[in-house]
Amino acid sequence: VTAKAHLPIGIFDSGIGGLTVVREVHRALPHEDVVYLGDTARVPYGTKSPETVTRFACEDAQFLVRKKVKAIVVACNTASAWALATLQSQFRVPIFGVITPGAQAAWEKTRNRCIGVIATAATIRSRAYQVAIADFDEQAKVIACPCPLLVPLVEEGWLEHKVTQAVLQEYLLPLLREKVDTLILGCTHYPLLKSAIGRIAGRQVALVDSAECCARFITEHLGRAKLLNPQRDRKGRIHSYVTDDTEHFEKMADRFLGFPVEQAWKVELPALLVKR
Amino acid sequence: VTAKAHLPIGIFDSGIGGLTVVREVHRALPHEDVVYLGDTARVPYGTKSPETVTRFACEDAQFLVRKKVKAIVVACNTASAWALATLQSQFRVPIFGVITPGAQAAWEKTRNRCIGVIATAATIRSRAYQVAIADFDEQAKVIACPCPLLVPLVEEGWLEHKVTQAVLQEYLLPLLREKVDTLILGCTHYPLLKSAIGRIAGRQVALVDSAECCARFITEHLGRAKLLNPQRDRKGRIHSYVTDDTEHFEKMADRFLGFPVEQAWKVELPALLVKR
Repeated sequence: VTAKAHLPIGIFDSGIGGLTVVREVHRALPHEDVVYLGDTARVPYGTKSPETVTRFACEDAQFLVRKKVKAIVVACNTASAWALATLQSQFRVPIFGVITPGAQAAWEKTRNRCIGVIATAATIRSRAYQVAIADFDEQAKVIACPCPLLVPLVEEGWLEHKVTQAVLQEYLLPLLREKVDTLILGCTHYPLLKSAIGRIAGRQVALVDSAECCARFITEHLGRAKLLNPQRDRKGRIHSYVTDDTEHFEKMADRFLGFPVEQAWKVELPALLVKR
Repeated sequence: VTAKAHLPIGIFDSGIGGLTVVREVHRALPHEDVVYLGDTARVPYGTKSPETVTRFACEDAQFLVRKKVKAIVVACNTASAWALATLQSQFRVPIFGVITPGAQAAWEKTRNRCIGVIATAATIRSRAYQVAIADFDEQAKVIACPCPLLVPLVEEGWLEHKVTQAVLQEYLLPLLREKVDTLILGCTHYPLLKSAIGRIAGRQVALVDSAECCARFITEHLGRAKLLNPQRDRKGRIHSYVTDDTEHFEKMADRFLGFPVEQAWKVELPALLVKR
């Protein structure tokens, strides 16, 4: 084990949705401390350009590096899709995204090699999932669909609403017509719609929750790098920072986390010092 | 006429929706130049806190002041609701919001003194429309409803979609049950839903488009301040600046503006120099 193993794991997201990744990391590694940053003042990233998403992601990562984390998880699919390579070249700490773990899980699950991906417009436009799946299986067919209304529906709390059902139907029918047997939920908010999606997709379609896959992926990689905290009998703490007001975050947090969050802190992100 | 009368009018918004205000200003004052700023890197404002919205609005206004505008119109309802007083105390140029013009028009139109307001969560929380309407008629009844899904539905282009119809029904029925006879469309995106809203609200409910009212209001106020451009035979130009990528803006612009926008420019907003 290295000296850094006692440090916390840093996780950032464009907003509140990354708490679904925190939940899975905390479930897999309950003795690890986590520092979470949600860029709630500038949320969402999924409607914005590659350059802007990359700049924001670098500022988020710089904040976590200054908090002395041993590794960084990019919980946001859009930031993983556009900014991961830049982040890895700019910072020395190990940095993990959610795309490769999701692609790998889908490749393991599919039987007919026809995989669907739903995500934000920016993630789909990046083709990151298509490229990552091709790394596992060049012949796999990938059908991707941007679903810009799902995040607002989740934030409105309409998880089981008939409107959500109608929106999901409109988005998913083209994928189902192509006979996908595996569907990647490529956005931090979508695990909350798992049961509504399952009802439309049916049991024959396996759902891949990128938060779950990501937690397994980093457990394995941190273990290999000897970065897992050896004190396994302690209870890890979750420290949350946000760029907008903490009140809304604290109120919404347990919808994503599954339990109440400790007090969050509001921060301003300093401009980038790393060269770009 | 003052020397400043030849300068452009500055208009800012959280994103692209403020172009509905530009459209009405351009229709009312076709010989005036307009400088538009859309803060597309940080859009939306309507889900964020008063402090964050006020900081962003001050940065937007500072940018326009440096472009030497003769007046500033805050096209964004949320920024008008939370930041107008701060803006007016920080900058010397005349600054107009969309709330008072909308409240005045509603007060003029209502017969039963029961007025509905639909807007973002932040605008409704601010109670700005309630306060502005009470300034005209303390006894008027105001029923306000936050409609967080309408902006995403407009941006998805689902203006006449059955899902939009169902969402509007859910949001509007409580207002209609209270017998509002006038409804303020308190967000820059909502004028695009005017016909869908009209079908649900019926002919007996007058719709108040805050973009239209705002254009009338500033025409009157600039005239009184001798700030209207006296060269009435020229054709005004619209210069657009955005904080994210210009491509998406240029593509979406004519949905809001009604005609194609000239080339837009991407800018970074400098930190605030005015004291807060």
